[in-house]
Amino acid sequence: MSTLTLPESIPSPIQDSEQLQKAFAGWGTNENLIISILAHRDSAQRKLICEAYLETYGEDLLKSLEKELSSDFERVVFLWTLDPAERDAILACETLKKWNTSNRILIEIACARSSHELFLVRQAYHARYKKSLEEDVAAHVTGNFRKLLLPLITSYRYEGAEVNMTLAKAEAKTLHEKIEGKTHNHEELIRILTTRSKAQLNATFNHYNSEFGTPINKDLKSDPKDDYLSALRAAIKCMTRPEKYFEKVLRLSINKLGTDEEALTRVVTTRAAVDMKLIMEEYYRRNSFPLDQAIISDTSGDYKEFLLALVGHGSS
Amino acid sequence: MSTLTLPESIPSPIQDSEQLQKAFAGWGTNENLIISILAHRDSAQRKLICEAYLETYGEDLLKSLEKELSSDFERVVFLWTLDPAERDAILACETLKKWNTSNRILIEIACARSSHELFLVRQAYHARYKKSLEEDVAAHVTGNFRKLLLPLITSYRYEGAEVNMTLAKAEAKTLHEKIEGKTHNHEELIRILTTRSKAQLNATFNHYNSEFGTPINKDLKSDPKDDYLSALRAAIKCMTRPEKYFEKVLRLSINKLGTDEEALTRVVTTRAAVDMKLIMEEYYRRNSFPLDQAIISDTSGDYKEFLLALVGHGSS
Repeated sequence: MSTLTLPESIPSPIQDSEQLQKAFAGWGTNENLIISILAHRDSAQRKLICEAYLETYGEDLLKSLEKELSSDFERVVFLWTLDPAERDAILACETLKKWNTSNRILIEIACARSSHELFLVRQAYHARYKKSLEEDVAAHVTGNFRKLLLPLITSYRYEGAEVNMTLAKAEAKTLHEKIEGKTHNHEELIRILTTRSKAQLNATFNHYNSEFGTPINKDLKSDPKDDYLSALRAAIKCMTRPEKYFEKVLRLSINKLGTDEEALTRVVTTRAAVDMKLIMEEYYRRNSFPLDQAIISDTSGDYKEFLLALVGHGSS
Repeated sequence: MSTLTLPESIPSPIQDSEQLQKAFAGWGTNENLIISILAHRDSAQRKLICEAYLETYGEDLLKSLEKELSSDFERVVFLWTLDPAERDAILACETLKKWNTSNRILIEIACARSSHELFLVRQAYHARYKKSLEEDVAAHVTGNFRKLLLPLITSYRYEGAEVNMTLAKAEAKTLHEKIEGKTHNHEELIRILTTRSKAQLNATFNHYNSEFGTPINKDLKSDPKDDYLSALRAAIKCMTRPEKYFEKVLRLSINKLGTDEEALTRVVTTRAAVDMKLIMEEYYRRNSFPLDQAIISDTSGDYKEFLLALVGHGSS
């Protein structure tokens, strides 16, 4: 489901880092060369390139990229080149520094990654910031958002497919009671959403829908302007239908007056190697317009080229 | 700080498993042979023995031990032979099945292990029980205990030695306010205890003591019969002075009318390879009587011999 395209024969990490060094050398930077390499290597390959570059030139490749590139192109290359767990740790830390209740990045990291990937983010956070992700979440976030985000970000959900239908029915009922009673911050509701496996939750939400006649996310829209309700819906969407969640983020980032490059860059760099194909199918279904064409209309220059390379434009 | 003693030359795992098989064969079991092997191998060696035994005899060594041994001796050999993370997962699961508020095992697992060890317990729990540790804690534990135990058991604390003194002072003040106001279940108090690194908490508790004139654990004794307060004290003790915490558990398990074998076995098997030397020093300091002598007076037979082997009796 990845849109990443790799060349048939992959140069060695040393060859790649030599080419990158050439792209930086002399007057001007050879952006096309950078794109042709970095946008077509998977995370393991990029890691080896970073190591080879550091060994050969004594400099961090990410630092060199920062020096040579600028604005949206710099950002997309930087985020993409990072190891995925490191990237999420950086996104989480940036988010916490300018925390506001409409921010959904922590929910994406907590709910749209595998349990082990989320654990690797927490490890990367330790290494980079000399503290834990949860202590920063706990210190920066307050109220209902803290009640929800802390258990989400510290979760290590079971990932098997086993489902307990009796439990699903009981917990669908609990969720319905709390939502009907408008106690959306009830600890039982939060407990269910933050500890059960995704397979189990899926069964619970399905039962909710068939038993009570409305999808849970529709019932969580009673006040469309309530940021906390929107966070609950985002968490549920990220866990059950991430491609629909990310389609919507892309749609809103592109349909705006003025593109939201921040969101566009984040979604493309974090999902290209995961499920971008599904997201693009969903995008086409929802907008009757292909995502790569939307990117072409909305962005320009090297930034556009890099995004198009990541979404596999012209590759099939 | 381990009391584990290994022979100078260690037999191969295949040789060890052959000897164990011999110990089980024929009429009666050769308990001394079992003790001489299993009580003198570290966890990596025991794991290899289990693998060799399974490969050679097509049976799980732990199952064979269960069949051949009984009562307290069976329990100590079983718990000791297990991989440490697996052992903790089993202890946690057993505890949750008969959960009561005076139980401290989950606190020991959450607070007296390293962050990575705790994560390995969560992984072992997935593999063994097809669900997550936190969902079982959340489903079985209620009220203040859930508020405390859920973030404790899902924590992944930073383990570096860095300390922020400004933060330590501010949070010592917060803790003091909440304790003085008897709001021991306040989310700020729980946030501090469950997210900060052990080094940071140590600085906070030191400042608490010097600024307010009493150690925090003394202030948390306002109602000595309150199980929740006792749980808070246990968490703090396990994080800052685990050897003092475990000395007390041993003291109470031995000084009872009738030994508490459950606790004695648990502490010896979980701490022998960690800090049993420190615990024994602390025990001697506190009781003017050596722990191994107390074990000799209080237990008997193969169970006694196994415990003595684990605490390094007669080895120095």
